[in-house]
Amino acid sequence: MRILILGGDGYLGWPTAMRFSNRGHEVHVVDNYLRRRAHSEAGTDSLTPIAAGLPERVAAWRDVTGLEIGVTEGDLTDWAVTEDLFRGFRPEAVIHYGEMPSAPYSMKDRDHAVFTQTNNVVNTLNVIYAIRDLVPDCHLVKLGTMGEYGTPNIDIEEGYIEIDHRGRTDTLPFPKLPGSMYHLSKVHDSHNIHFACRVWGMRATDLNQGVVYGIETDETKLDDRLLTRFDYDDVFGTALNRFCLQAVIGHPLTVYGKGGQTRGYLNIEDTLQCVELSVMNPAARGEMRVFNQFTESFSVTDLAELVQKAGAELGMEVAVEPIDNPRFELEEHYYNPAHTKLLDLGLKPHLLSETLIESMFAQIERFKDRVIDEHILPRDRWQPAGS
Amino acid sequence: MRILILGGDGYLGWPTAMRFSNRGHEVHVVDNYLRRRAHSEAGTDSLTPIAAGLPERVAAWRDVTGLEIGVTEGDLTDWAVTEDLFRGFRPEAVIHYGEMPSAPYSMKDRDHAVFTQTNNVVNTLNVIYAIRDLVPDCHLVKLGTMGEYGTPNIDIEEGYIEIDHRGRTDTLPFPKLPGSMYHLSKVHDSHNIHFACRVWGMRATDLNQGVVYGIETDETKLDDRLLTRFDYDDVFGTALNRFCLQAVIGHPLTVYGKGGQTRGYLNIEDTLQCVELSVMNPAARGEMRVFNQFTESFSVTDLAELVQKAGAELGMEVAVEPIDNPRFELEEHYYNPAHTKLLDLGLKPHLLSETLIESMFAQIERFKDRVIDEHILPRDRWQPAGS
Repeated sequence: MRILILGGDGYLGWPTAMRFSNRGHEVHVVDNYLRRRAHSEAGTDSLTPIAAGLPERVAAWRDVTGLEIGVTEGDLTDWAVTEDLFRGFRPEAVIHYGEMPSAPYSMKDRDHAVFTQTNNVVNTLNVIYAIRDLVPDCHLVKLGTMGEYGTPNIDIEEGYIEIDHRGRTDTLPFPKLPGSMYHLSKVHDSHNIHFACRVWGMRATDLNQGVVYGIETDETKLDDRLLTRFDYDDVFGTALNRFCLQAVIGHPLTVYGKGGQTRGYLNIEDTLQCVELSVMNPAARGEMRVFNQFTESFSVTDLAELVQKAGAELGMEVAVEPIDNPRFELEEHYYNPAHTKLLDLGLKPHLLSETLIESMFAQIERFKDRVIDEHILPRDRWQPAGS
Repeated sequence: MRILILGGDGYLGWPTAMRFSNRGHEVHVVDNYLRRRAHSEAGTDSLTPIAAGLPERVAAWRDVTGLEIGVTEGDLTDWAVTEDLFRGFRPEAVIHYGEMPSAPYSMKDRDHAVFTQTNNVVNTLNVIYAIRDLVPDCHLVKLGTMGEYGTPNIDIEEGYIEIDHRGRTDTLPFPKLPGSMYHLSKVHDSHNIHFACRVWGMRATDLNQGVVYGIETDETKLDDRLLTRFDYDDVFGTALNRFCLQAVIGHPLTVYGKGGQTRGYLNIEDTLQCVELSVMNPAARGEMRVFNQFTESFSVTDLAELVQKAGAELGMEVAVEPIDNPRFELEEHYYNPAHTKLLDLGLKPHLLSETLIESMFAQIERFKDRVIDEHILPRDRWQPAGS
């Protein structure tokens, strides 16, 4: 199958590209290096040393496996780039990781909020118009986030909810309470994609993904030149990955506020499985399928305790230090989201275990000299003083 | 009260400015003449001859009433413009009509869709950041549209719905099924504004307005230089206004498809009343109030019959000619939206009557030499061939 991967230079994009290439698909990646630029502006970097750019990454992949991956270095908000790409490659599936992915980045100030929403909404509009006009049978697999839902006081369903109201019934999009300018941009995308499916008959799968953890996939293990990035800083890092790194370098685990914030999590290997299952079992024409893509729920405190326990097994002293929560979120709340549809398609979860955490410790240990300590603590607050 | 009106050159913005000025408020209007430019690009125009620009309009207002209205000619997507405006005028209420308002315009092609969403989302983001950082107590009165809801098979509530689900209950944003790229932009705005209220404590009223009809307000009647615009073309015209014009010039009424599409409507005088009631009874800090702003529901066929009947009274021959529906919408559907909250605040509706239609005929008659016939029929379709 011809598979186009948007954001193919990212934490998940690059491993996804290698996975589909390994499976014998024709893969093309595109990226504008937005995340690399944001890192160099902020003085932060990936823990893992990654190849200089996509041409170097696919050259290493060719070297190790003999397989080819096509590359476009370009910005999908530029219609000329998007149009050329779709006309030339004629994808049968598009996997769309190509967005500004950070909530803290989007909450820095007005400029970053406007950039995040414009970048994400416009590139997704370009993609849906390219599919409509150039490859109407193509299946869009779009990465959304569980953060689109927020934490309502009812069970979260997978994208839609049947509502009985004053004697009538309809199944409607699940109401959203996104928690940052970034999460809002994903909600906007979901509405735009739903429209394209309803009105133009596009086929789409919206993957509302939980927080991904892990550092290795079967393909990154083949050669250090194939490593994926690993972010631990305040802008691009995420909870479990950051805690593992903090444990290794002897930094207290930074639990935000009360630590009762509960979210869905999944292993990076399971992201690859979920995306592959979605691509190999496409949505019907006119359908926007929504899958909640995570395998387990944990509170921040649960994660801190797991990391502490795994550290203790290895004789590490791991401290936990709650800090003032920079975000605006409930720190104690109901959370019970459905996540059965990917299991129904055949997902076999790799659940979080001490062994997994210990293997993450070992990987992080290899690169710990690269850690930039001063970028671990959060710098930007969701609510400015006085609001 | 210091009242800032965004989109103050528009069909509703200009009459709103005059109304608040007449009531003794300090009024400032801003507009970038987006609609005037879109008309000149398309070769269309307002039926009514309107003054050359905002400086001419406020000069005429001063001349007729002795009252001052401040003017900014500028684009709110430019942060420098927005910031200067909020720093200088320090509004206590902002009435936000300042968006690209046309569904057909947004559906012309990718360029128009991207422009519509970028323009509307970015200028609204600028406004909410300006309020947050410069005038945090200011009340945002934002014009949304009933079209955000689409036509679900349940009663539409005012912005929120209480959902009982698997033994738990929450009140959540009403799910949206917007029917065009323009309507989507308004849904995006609603989510962004809701976030600003929840997280920053902004006060906002989102007015989900129905289709407005009418050509005169108390203030436009004072002098022809104070007329508001009246659009009847395929891009900016709306159902009842266009039917009245068609009746006067002897053009068959163009009912789209089966004509069962039912929507909420209101008189332009009632728009002014609703906006005034909202401003004078502001939302609380942290609250996004949503009002469904219309007074009566009609199907397209109902309207055509009313216009036909009013025409017959005056001895006019009015034909009805169904045409292929350019839009994607259900032509027969359930429709029962709540609209009690503005009535509770004191709205006294001006309901649609034959007399009103006859007075519209008389106004249109005055300017019928200005009608450009070839721009009455729709040119752009929601679904391109083959989709």
